[in-house]
Amino acid sequence: MQNIKLASLKAQTKTIIEVGPVKFGQDFVVIAGPCSVESENQTLEIARAVKSSGAHMLRGGAFKPRTSPYNFQGLGLKGLKILEKARETSGLPVVSEVLDTRDVSWMCEYVDLLQIGARNMQNFSLLKEVGKIQTPVLLKRGMYSTISEWLNCAEYILSEGNPHVILCERGIRTFETYTRNTLDLSAVSAMKELTHLPVIVDPTHSTGRTSLILPMSLAAVAAGADGLIVEVHNNPALALSDKDQALTPYQFSELIGRVMNLRAFMENTY
Amino acid sequence: MQNIKLASLKAQTKTIIEVGPVKFGQDFVVIAGPCSVESENQTLEIARAVKSSGAHMLRGGAFKPRTSPYNFQGLGLKGLKILEKARETSGLPVVSEVLDTRDVSWMCEYVDLLQIGARNMQNFSLLKEVGKIQTPVLLKRGMYSTISEWLNCAEYILSEGNPHVILCERGIRTFETYTRNTLDLSAVSAMKELTHLPVIVDPTHSTGRTSLILPMSLAAVAAGADGLIVEVHNNPALALSDKDQALTPYQFSELIGRVMNLRAFMENTY
Amino acid sequence: MQNIKLASLKAQTKTIIEVGPVKFGQDFVVIAGPCSVESENQTLEIARAVKSSGAHMLRGGAFKPRTSPYNFQGLGLKGLKILEKARETSGLPVVSEVLDTRDVSWMCEYVDLLQIGARNMQNFSLLKEVGKIQTPVLLKRGMYSTISEWLNCAEYILSEGNPHVILCERGIRTFETYTRNTLDLSAVSAMKELTHLPVIVDPTHSTGRTSLILPMSLAAVAAGADGLIVEVHNNPALALSDKDQALTPYQFSELIGRVMNLRAFMENTY
Amino acid sequence: MQNIKLASLKAQTKTIIEVGPVKFGQDFVVIAGPCSVESENQTLEIARAVKSSGAHMLRGGAFKPRTSPYNFQGLGLKGLKILEKARETSGLPVVSEVLDTRDVSWMCEYVDLLQIGARNMQNFSLLKEVGKIQTPVLLKRGMYSTISEWLNCAEYILSEGNPHVILCERGIRTFETYTRNTLDLSAVSAMKELTHLPVIVDPTHSTGRTSLILPMSLAAVAAGADGLIVEVHNNPALALSDKDQALTPYQFSELIGRVMNLRAFMENTY
Repeated sequence: MQNIKLASLKAQTKTIIEVGPVKFGQDFVVIAGPCSVESENQTLEIARAVKSSGAHMLRGGAFKPRTSPYNFQGLGLKGLKILEKARETSGLPVVSEVLDTRDVSWMCEYVDLLQIGARNMQNFSLLKEVGKIQTPVLLKRGMYSTISEWLNCAEYILSEGNPHVILCERGIRTFETYTRNTLDLSAVSAMKELTHLPVIVDPTHSTGRTSLILPMSLAAVAAGADGLIVEVHNNPALALSDKDQALTPYQFSELIGRVMNLRAFMENTY
Repeated sequence: MQNIKLASLKAQTKTIIEVGPVKFGQDFVVIAGPCSVESENQTLEIARAVKSSGAHMLRGGAFKPRTSPYNFQGLGLKGLKILEKARETSGLPVVSEVLDTRDVSWMCEYVDLLQIGARNMQNFSLLKEVGKIQTPVLLKRGMYSTISEWLNCAEYILSEGNPHVILCERGIRTFETYTRNTLDLSAVSAMKELTHLPVIVDPTHSTGRTSLILPMSLAAVAAGADGLIVEVHNNPALALSDKDQALTPYQFSELIGRVMNLRAFMENTY
Repeated sequence: MQNIKLASLKAQTKTIIEVGPVKFGQDFVVIAGPCSVESENQTLEIARAVKSSGAHMLRGGAFKPRTSPYNFQGLGLKGLKILEKARETSGLPVVSEVLDTRDVSWMCEYVDLLQIGARNMQNFSLLKEVGKIQTPVLLKRGMYSTISEWLNCAEYILSEGNPHVILCERGIRTFETYTRNTLDLSAVSAMKELTHLPVIVDPTHSTGRTSLILPMSLAAVAAGADGLIVEVHNNPALALSDKDQALTPYQFSELIGRVMNLRAFMENTY
Repeated sequence: MQNIKLASLKAQTKTIIEVGPVKFGQDFVVIAGPCSVESENQTLEIARAVKSSGAHMLRGGAFKPRTSPYNFQGLGLKGLKILEKARETSGLPVVSEVLDTRDVSWMCEYVDLLQIGARNMQNFSLLKEVGKIQTPVLLKRGMYSTISEWLNCAEYILSEGNPHVILCERGIRTFETYTRNTLDLSAVSAMKELTHLPVIVDPTHSTGRTSLILPMSLAAVAAGADGLIVEVHNNPALALSDKDQALTPYQFSELIGRVMNLRAFMENTY
């Protein structure tokens, strides 16, 4: 692939990215948590639940990119402080999305992993800014982006000096309407032959249907993914965003059991 | 889903479709063989090889839908006679694509399973014609077709009187160019919640890259597919069609071993 | 473009295709009529109306490709006989869609122009069959088809011996849902630099919204199209198919006036 | 359309946006200039040329969003100073793209119209930031964005207090590869029935082919667009970006003549 230097398998054969005690690229990593941080109670409760099921990291949105300006935009700094508290009480490292170049430096104080969302994948100013720090970055694939464009965006971050990039396939936009997006698992395997960076999968946003999250999580493991990021809510029906696609803590505990079981089989067998 | 009656899970919870000794919907079925039947030697050699690796059925195109009229169009009746011979010598049931309403009745004499290809998924005359016979039908998803449209095409066949329909996901057309098409494994799991018909996966045409066939086959098993159809050629470099995506017999033997192993794990565990 | 020989501009610089008194490729041709032939009264009334507004040809479906088998499938032969009568009384040549290779030879007795619909664009058996006759063919672009694939389908017909092929852009499938499909007017201009065959535009199926038919018809003229095919119904609300996108005869008379006026300006100016 | 308040036709029937002497929404506006500002000589020469042909505004990129970090990223502040000089000498108002929230306030000193590019359409931080100023904004449609999402992005800017938003259709991403993107002219007419904001068309980035720019510009006029933005370079073969799609000054002078002529006809006739 043209122009891919630092992210290429020719540069390096494997990368392990440490986020606290979590090692992406070595261990299979399951990240779970609410779409949005809504309140301290909600977030601490979910953190406790997913931790007890075996999740390795906590997710939660403080700044929310929403289609309409009149939708809930997130709690901002207050949300980050709640995440910080959830990290303290649960011991789970935390990932949250950054939307603005001006927020990069100070958000690192609150989170262990900075997420670049699908809508900002080609926000090159933001990519350059997270390239200047050493906090690991979770780079989601744009819903309209080719594998080549996605890898070039990782190259933007790497070429600025931050080597800690984790890729996340989250579905692409197609004509299909039964699912919210079309999860492209070929892209996971394709990335494995193109780059040394870890690749995880988001079965929640890609399918948009709770019933499809388990089978797509298992398929992601079989395709060779390095981890998953899934939405869990203590009361999905009352969630302020993405209410139709969040798992309950119980559903999540079932999912992580099956997923880790399959992963162990894959590792032992091949 | 509107208008889905006979194919719906409300009509029936499970269908087992027998093609000779093969039971779709009960056993995991691996179909293998060349894109095109090119000669008796080629076809018999491939049939022997895939049989010895454990394939359950043989595929091979006698009528080939090609983008250009100047490309190889298949051997026609001669190809079907070669397939018949391959079936006799290998004992494997045979699937081949039908392109024309006028060929439906007599092609059943030569093949055990009639394939409707992606380009003909909404060729409603052809669907009605295969609905009037009792030979099982393999209905590929159109590369531009929604899950709903695909299921409606199965309903066309069922409503004419032929209940023996097997669905095949083979990738949809998107903007991505690294892969030939985008394999939509969510569609497999989606079909499992919509219909009682078996669903298999074609990792060859969807990815168009030999390196991605194994991981996508494993992912298909994990997603709950009922089988696979893959292209195998004794000399891929010399194949008259699809030379870049056919497995060698050796690669196939490795693939089927891993696939059946994973399937056994999935069945035993869940 | 590879493999394009007979359809290429290198083979010929311009083609004029005569359908009765109508000359595609020379005059701007407006085809109008109902989606489906529903009854003699309906069809004759619409034929009279569009003729009096200045339409050059009548359209009407006798065999209808419908997503569900439980939808109205067309009147078949009875519909063709009604079209024949409409042709006699109005003097307008008639176009109707053929769905089956077995219908090609006898349908030519009833219609002046045989339509290959979008879903059958790559039904190669049907293309070969209409290539063996001399009745002109209207080849619609598949909703999932590249310009290159579309031109190859024209080449299929030409290479069998029928040089009378008219292309019709009718919108492609994208993620956009406001319109039924996305009308690709660039494809019209692209075809003008690739082939000598006439290209017309279907603003009805592409937009699926009556309010967009006029502006897209004008845009088609400006883009260099050789004609239009639009749906007109005497009572759209009661139409058996496509009720949301048919123009009333009054709306049609307004449209054709503006369209022919713009076409005259374009011809006189450039 | 849900959630569209300030941008809706219900709020207001027409908006005229003044950019210096130019009145979007009243006069047909043609913006021309290089993809990137490369040097003072290049920019002043192009500005002179397009001004003499009748262009109403000058475009030129100082900050360039490029797929690869190793491609030319624009001259930055130096480029803006060149644009300022080009504005002084030619008298043409200037539009340039802003990529970063931190650049919004000071870039207004240099340009008359701030462009939000396709890749940043859903960069909500940037939308909010340009909503806080009063400099007019040119909001390009994301290459992956529905009409509804696009209009919601305009609503973001309007709801922050900046009512001066101009929309720009620039093609969407589809499976077609003959053109760079697929120009969606239906979206222009659709916007006319949804919003009071002016809508212009970019025939350069959408088609990616110089031969298609003229026909698509004429089609845009016929579809009801309020203006055009086209790339012009004094020496396209040597351009540092987009060399295959820039018009020469001579080609541009021909284009603007035809375009304004057609626009006058459309206005006088309808």
